[in-house]
Amino acid sequence: MIFSNWQVIGLIAAALTTFGFIPQIITMLKHKRALDVSPITLFQFLIGTFLWALYGFHLNDPIIYIANLITLVTVVIAIILYFRFR
Amino acid sequence: MIFSNWQVIGLIAAALTTFGFIPQIITMLKHKRALDVSPITLFQFLIGTFLWALYGFHLNDPIIYIANLITLVTVVIAIILYFRFR
Repeated sequence: MIFSNWQVIGLIAAALTTFGFIPQIITMLKHKRALDVSPITLFQFLIGTFLWALYGFHLNDPIIYIANLITLVTVVIAIILYFRFR
Repeated sequence: MIFSNWQVIGLIAAALTTFGFIPQIITMLKHKRALDVSPITLFQFLIGTFLWALYGFHLNDPIIYIANLITLVTVVIAIILYFRFR
């Protein structure tokens, strides 16, 4: 599979935002604390990525639903850690 | 303009994630502190939304580039506040 330069830009963009909460998870695990992390931001992404995934299923577009389901899982983990450590 | 139910779901999803960092900005402004906020998460979204916006311009898709430019502005503000308050 050969990607054009623009597709590579799209893929890098998707990877960066899809896995955007991984560093926040690592920071909470390292600090064992979640001061000043906004739970509302986490819940907005929880509901937002859930609805994006639904919309992706509706459009039958695996790129939309797989990317958003991955982010959804990371956001669920971030929310669990937030309430564990805040 | 009449939207279908599925389009409404897509619009709500887009609004929640596009404005996802607004609560984080408010939390940092209120606390005047940014402990345990991950700057790497912020930089991933900075570069990610910038590349998404470029990709949207390439596709000539205003929904992609406008949504990502809005998020980009909020992430720039969040990064400035992070380095001001950390």
